[in-house]
This record gives sequence, structure tokens and C-alpha cells, in this order.
Amino acid sequence: MSDEATRIAALTARLSPAGAGVVLGIGDDAAVLAPLSGGIVLTVDTSIEGVHFRREWAPLRTLARRAVVAAVSDLAAMGAKPRATLVALALPADLGDDAFLALIDGTADAARETGAALVGGNLSAASELSLTTTAVGEAGARVLTRSGARVGDGVYATGVLGAAALGLAHLTSGRAGEPGAAAFVARWCSPVARLDEGQALVAAGASACIDVSDGLLRDLGQLCAASAVAAEIEIERLPMLAQQREQAHALGLDAAALALTGGEDYELVFTGAASAALDALGTRLGRIVDGPPGEVRALDAAGKRLTVGAGGFEHFRA
Amino acid sequence: MSDEATRIAALTARLSPAGAGVVLGIGDDAAVLAPLSGGIVLTVDTSIEGVHFRREWAPLRTLARRAVVAAVSDLAAMGAKPRATLVALALPADLGDDAFLALIDGTADAARETGAALVGGNLSAASELSLTTTAVGEAGARVLTRSGARVGDGVYATGVLGAAALGLAHLTSGRAGEPGAAAFVARWCSPVARLDEGQALVAAGASACIDVSDGLLRDLGQLCAASAVAAEIEIERLPMLAQQREQAHALGLDAAALALTGGEDYELVFTGAASAALDALGTRLGRIVDGPPGEVRALDAAGKRLTVGAGGFEHFRA
Repeated sequence: MSDEATRIAALTARLSPAGAGVVLGIGDDAAVLAPLSGGIVLTVDTSIEGVHFRREWAPLRTLARRAVVAAVSDLAAMGAKPRATLVALALPADLGDDAFLALIDGTADAARETGAALVGGNLSAASELSLTTTAVGEAGARVLTRSGARVGDGVYATGVLGAAALGLAHLTSGRAGEPGAAAFVARWCSPVARLDEGQALVAAGASACIDVSDGLLRDLGQLCAASAVAAEIEIERLPMLAQQREQAHALGLDAAALALTGGEDYELVFTGAASAALDALGTRLGRIVDGPPGEVRALDAAGKRLTVGAGGFEHFRA
Repeated sequence: MSDEATRIAALTARLSPAGAGVVLGIGDDAAVLAPLSGGIVLTVDTSIEGVHFRREWAPLRTLARRAVVAAVSDLAAMGAKPRATLVALALPADLGDDAFLALIDGTADAARETGAALVGGNLSAASELSLTTTAVGEAGARVLTRSGARVGDGVYATGVLGAAALGLAHLTSGRAGEPGAAAFVARWCSPVARLDEGQALVAAGASACIDVSDGLLRDLGQLCAASAVAAEIEIERLPMLAQQREQAHALGLDAAALALTGGEDYELVFTGAASAALDALGTRLGRIVDGPPGEVRALDAAGKRLTVGAGGFEHFRA
């Protein structure tokens, strides 16, 4: 089956037929979607073996699903509804047909789960395995940008933070099989795009939003830079899974530092004037303040500013 | 400048500001286009160093422009109008800032030239250089698929065929500097997406269309397979540049064989009931006939069937 035409045929056969809104799916020069009444939201994300993942960390199907979810998460951060995905696969010559089908199944899993029809693909020979996903969404009544945060807004996050980074630490240290590790490894391997939350944030009046791919400090820093504001985060409020502190400690890591700097949670960090609607959608972590654009300050329980280093926290010295 | 954030800033600064129809360009979690009245046409294409190009063949700016044009060509084949592109770059660590900016300039060249705003990007470390382009277009009154060809239709091509493959042969044999080679090398390095022609084909009533990326025989074969028909091509009619036969001969190649099998011309091959409107848009090469779906027969001047081998033509023996 290894030639490209046969693989494309296998790919097409495994994908669900054109669904609602899909005029023409995989198999022509391009796919065609019916016109959308809302704005068209577009993003692209690449996942490369050896850079973003290692094959020994999870089955290829899981890794392919993860790569697509990471792209779709950007639609969640805009409050958009997924409509379509396209996946370009770069495949090393030694990748067998079973591995190829596992990759296809994983992309189809993600498409089905997120409601985005898989309408296009590209197969290419390469020396390293990579998946590049384009996600196409439809904007709601408005889009959530990074630039709308205002001084006085609360800063919130969906779900928990740092759990994926802790799972990754288990994987990279070869300790993924230890008791209690599974919940964290799953957070890294099988993230969920916060699509319902993103759409709900539009209705709830959130002022800005970003998804956590590079870590709270960096991603919230980007949001603050785009909004020309600063933020304060109370580290006591960082939302975590049960056992997250103990599991981090067992690996010699600080759970709060991981929650601030660990990426790939694909949770949404958002801002807005405090309200019951926003409180229902996430944990309040802190607030937007006046300050150098993009600065994010971590505060301890006493309100003292901390800096985050490799070994954990230190009190901030200006 | 080499960290990702600084490169993204450089990228954003070099790109033209949001244009007509672009609500939100590069810099947020995703880009947003205003709703389109026509269907949304989507395609993705990857160009990888060592697989699709070599850096010594052309300046990086030229190669990047080419990678984007190859994707946009799929929109031309659908008769669609380009609206946006997104480019995911995978960059080896040794790729310097000048090279990075050359890649960005090349993608911006293609965007400007094809009228597709460059609205999204992704930068990733990698061991091999690649560009994955997503092209987003708007469908016209209808889209040109591969599946509409009918027995009795004429088969046509825009421009010339085999010239890009001949240019590539000059490049791979280190003879790109020889007299007369430049016109062919340019055809490989700097293809043009046949966007006006694609849109005109919709109005002119073409029944099916595909762009020539893998060679006439293969691409027309795909069109015929999708339409459940066969085709006959008269090799005497294959459109070529002046000096194409002589230049091919000098490299020990057969120009007609290259025109049938050479890819990357990014011309459009289309079908339709013969008319002055179609004749004005391309050269008539042959006709759609009843036969095994996907079969394409090459005929000599006497109407005898030929097969194309590595050394040129032989008469067909069933």
C-alpha cells in the first residue's frame, strides 16, 4: 500500500463522508465548505517528532490526535466553532503502513471529537515525521482576541495548570509507569480543546483570551502585551489536580512553578470584569493591573512578589 | 533576533497590514476573515528541502514564493479566488536570520502577487527545512472539480507543458548556466498560478479541471479516474516554449515525453465541450473518450497509441 496514491485512497476511505457544511471533501484539488455566516477563523500548528514529541511517549494515534487538538485549541481561544481541519503529513520512508493508518485514525479522532470535518490533506516524504494542522472555525457574535484586557479585569483559567508539564516530566524521565503518574501523563498525551468554554466566554463577556501552550507566565504575558497592561497572579490560587504537588515533589519539581511555566495544558486563560458567568467558567487567578505592558507578577499568599527560577521561587528583588 | 518571539515580531512587521476582508491578521491565536459570500475553498501543500527543492537551485526567497504558489495553484484549479494564506515554517537551527527573512519575503511576494493575504504562520524548530502552505479561496458561481469530464469533451491545457521539468533537469545536472537554459530554469523556479484562467474557465463552462503538479499523464489520469472516463492526447499538440525540443535534446531528453510526464508546470488541464471560449483559454490536446476510468492514451500524428518510457516513446503493444 505504500505508494502515495494508495495511501491517499486508504486515507479517504477511513475518513467520514462529507458532513453538514462540507460541499467537497478530500480527493479533489481543494475542499469546499458552504459559506459561513460568521467570520472565518484560521490557524496553523506544526508538531514535529524530536521537537514536540517522541514516538515512545504514546501510540502514534494518540500523538496525531494531540497534534490536531493543539491546533483546534487556538479556535477555542478565539471563541470560535470548529468547522474543518486539513492535515499535512511529512512521513519518513521507514514509516510503515500500520503507522500511517494510526496517524490517520488519530487525526480523524480529533476531527470527530472537535466537530471539525477533516477535509484536506497532503502526504510528503521527509526525513522527520511531522504533522501540520490547519484548523478552520466560524466566529461567534464576536471573537476573543488577546488585546481586550483592561485594568481591573480578573484573570481566570479553565481546568488545571501544570498537569501536562508534570506528565511530560514523567515521560522524559522514564517514570510514566510509576503509581499516580497516569493522570498527568494523560494530561500531556490527550489534551482537550476547551471549545465549549471558549464559545461560552463570548456570551459571558470575557475581554481577552489565549490558550496555554507555552506556559501561563508566557501566554498571559502575550495577552498582557497585546492589551498593553500587566497582570498579578496569586500562586495560592493556581488550579491543580489532586496529588499534583506530591507527584511534582516526587520528581524534584515544584508544582506551582510548573503551573506558572509549564506549557501544553491547552486550557484557556481569560480576562474580564468579575461576574458569576466568568466565575462559572474558570478559576480566578488574579487581576489585570497597570504596569509595563506584558509584565506578569507572581505573588505569594502575603502579596509579596516572587520570581520563578529553575529551583522554584525566590522573593523578587527589583 | 533568533528567538521565536523576535522572529514572529520581524515577520509581522514585514507583512502588509490587514487588508480588505481581513478582520484580524497575524499576531493572535488565530486570524479572522470577514464572511465570504461564496463557498470556502481550502487546500494545503508542503515543500521540503531535499524532497521538493535544494537550496542551491534558487535563492530562498524564490523557493519560498514557489512553495506558496504551488498551494495557491490548487485554488486556480478550482476556479476559486485566493483570499488568504497561512504558512508553517519548520526551520533548522543553523538557518540564520537573513535566510529566515528571505523565506518570509518570498511568502509575502506570493501572497501579494496572488491577492491572498498572509494571515497566519507558525514557526518551529526542525532538522529539515520545510514550508507548509494553507491556501484559502472563495468559490465562484461554481467550483471546477476533477469529476465533471464527459465523453466527447475536449482536453486542454493552459501555457506550456514540460518546461518546468526541463528546467529542473538543468538544475539537477548542474547545467542551469548553459545558453538557453534560463527560460526553463525560470519555469521551475518561478511558476505562476493560473488564477485568472481558472476563474475564466468557470464562466466559459469547463467541465473539469486539475493543475499539473505531477505531470500531464498522471494528473489528467486523476481527472479521468474521478470522472470515470478515459482520454486521448495527441502528442503533436503538446504546447511548448520555443527551443524546448532543442534544449531537451541537448540534455539527452525527449521534449514530448517531458511534456507528458514532467510535473510542476502548475498549468491547468481542463475539459469541456469545444467552444471559442475554451479555445481562448488553452491549447486543445485531445479528447475525453469512453474507456477504462483513468486511462490516458498518448497518440502519434498517425493516431497510433504510444507508451512513454525512460528513453522516450514506443508504439503501444496491448
